[in-house]
Order: sequence, then C-alpha cells, then structure tokens
Amino acid sequence: MQKSFKKLTLCSNSPRRRELLSGLDLEFTVDTKTSFEEVVPPGMAPEDIPMHMALGKAGGFHRPLEEGELLITADTIVICNGKALGKPAPNKESAAAMLRMLSGKTHMVITAVCITSLEEQISFTDRSEVTFCALTDDEIDYYTDKYQPYDKAGAYGVQEWIGYVGIERIEGSFYNVMGLPVHKLWRALSTT
Amino acid sequence: MQKSFKKLTLCSNSPRRRELLSGLDLEFTVDTKTSFEEVVPPGMAPEDIPMHMALGKAGGFHRPLEEGELLITADTIVICNGKALGKPAPNKESAAAMLRMLSGKTHMVITAVCITSLEEQISFTDRSEVTFCALTDDEIDYYTDKYQPYDKAGAYGVQEWIGYVGIERIEGSFYNVMGLPVHKLWRALSTT
Repeated sequence: MQKSFKKLTLCSNSPRRRELLSGLDLEFTVDTKTSFEEVVPPGMAPEDIPMHMALGKAGGFHRPLEEGELLITADTIVICNGKALGKPAPNKESAAAMLRMLSGKTHMVITAVCITSLEEQISFTDRSEVTFCALTDDEIDYYTDKYQPYDKAGAYGVQEWIGYVGIERIEGSFYNVMGLPVHKLWRALSTT
Repeated sequence: MQKSFKKLTLCSNSPRRRELLSGLDLEFTVDTKTSFEEVVPPGMAPEDIPMHMALGKAGGFHRPLEEGELLITADTIVICNGKALGKPAPNKESAAAMLRMLSGKTHMVITAVCITSLEEQISFTDRSEVTFCALTDDEIDYYTDKYQPYDKAGAYGVQEWIGYVGIERIEGSFYNVMGLPVHKLWRALSTT
C-alpha cells in the first residue's frame, strides 16, 4: 500500500526485524551504522531500557537523514522476576540458564520503537506477556544445541522450535515478542 | 528429538499445518485421503464443530493404520458474535464481508486435534482470543486482492500481511490461531 514518505531506513542487525518489516509490504533499506554503545546506565529501571536503546541508536545514526526519509530503530528486552534479560553470553550454559529461569513462568517482553525524520521523532513501546510451559532438561539441551539462540533477548526465538513446543500462552502482540510491534508501527507510519 | 512412535501421518490439506508440524523437527508424511464430508450437523453448537470435524476426518481415513503409526487430524474455526465462520466463498466480496465482521472486535479461534493409533485416540482443543484493530476499507481491499484468503477460516491468515498490520492482541496460543496448537500436540506426542 502506498505511503507518503519517500524513503524508509531500518537501522537494526536483527534478521527478525527485517523479516517483520518486509511483511508490511513496504520498500526499505537496511543501514545498521550507529555509533551508539548499548550500555545500560546504572540504576535504570528495566522497563525503561528498550526506549533508551531505541532513542540512542537513532541519535548515533552515522549520517544526516535525507528529506522525506524515515529512520526506524528498535530494541527488545525480556523482564522476568523484575530482572532485565538481554542477549545471553554466546555459550550454551548462559542460554540454558536463561531458559531455566523462564521455564514454567510468565515474563514480560517490551519492544521500544523510534521513528525519526528531519522534522520529528515518534516513539512508542509495546508490551506482551509470554507464558512458558515447564521445559524439560532435554528440551533446553536440544534447543540450545541446535538453535544456538545467542543473538536473542531471553535466549529464545518465539518463532523457533522452543516457541512451538514450549510457549503455552501470549497476551498481547506475537510480533512484538519477535522484535517489532508491526501493528503499531504500521499505524504510526500511516499518520507520518 | 526422539519420540517412541514409528510413523507420523498428517491428514490435512492446510499448508500452515504442514509448516507447523515441520517446526516440531519431527519426520512425518502427508496423506490427505479421507472419505469424511465436512458438513455441520444441524443445530450443532459452534464450539463443538472443530472436534466433530477432526474426529470425522480420522474416522474416514482411507486405509487401516499401521502398527506404531499415529494419525493427526485437525480442524480450526472462528467464532465471532456467537456465529461460526469457516472458509469464505472463494471470492473477494465474501472474504471482505468476513473481515468487516471481525474488524475492531475480539473473536475466538478454536482448533481441535485428534491423534489416532491402532490402540487409542487422544483428542483435545485449544482456544485463543484474537483482537483486530479497526480495519480501513483500503486495508481490507488490499489484503483480499493480493492474498486471496479463501482457504482460511475467517478469511485471514494471522501470519500474513493482515495479521501484521491488523491484529493488536492475542490471548492464548498464536500457533493455535495459525491452525495447530503445537505446544499441546508436542506434549501429547511425548506421552503417546
């Protein structure tokens, strides 16, 4: 469907975000260069972290925006027992430890999205609750071995095997859990 | 992961069900031949329809099952305002009328699954609530033109464009809405 902006740019290394934005049937380019360092300021509340990161990625974008260009940045975090879970360390033990923490519990997923143009900046968040079944050691072992979910907040992909066998309930947007609340993004782009 | 059954057979014409069963990383074959006719008995309550269909597809399977074989049959229905919505008539007007009915409302999706072997039959249902944003005429027009959702209960695919731009909330299993509650199927297969 036709939109009024001239150019859409996604600043994200996440293949899921690229896939989700593609699903909106919009043309866009990917440009991941930003000087922003993803460091959480001491004392920041977990639920404020994704917006801090999404705004920071936009602020550190490596070049000036063009006339009519919209830049999309986003960040996703998992909050379980009041603790923020980002990506695990890139090893099986760290990923398995996160999954054992999520097993049999309900956690919160928050994604913040920031749309920046020369004239303005629109930002919003979306929250979903995700309930995992009680996972067996064999299931955690199989998933971390085969899928190596080291680039994912909370060490799981809702669209992967563990999301098929292990998630019994979502309250909110499924695509928000994947990394981009496309229903809100679409409506924001429709009014931009 | 290893399971104890010798052979898994899916009796379903739905490409979504094939994709979802593949996502469980199990080997299976597809055999869609059943003599069952999908006719709703007069007076049947909407929420009983999917189980009637799933059991019927299994009962009409065209050949005897083998020793150690599990047959999976399933059926999905959308219930909106107390009315059962199956697949639309294969034309744009019928699909658009269903989407206008779902727009801005919460509806229920029920999938019934039946696992049949020589020794026993296990069956279960799963329910999810789906809330659509208020859809514009342009959105309904674009989706029905481009995606022709004639083979889908309720005239929409949650995994397609309309599910990206138009669904603001799910309560329950996303994959149940796609056509197969894989978390329950996985656990049922684990104990079979």
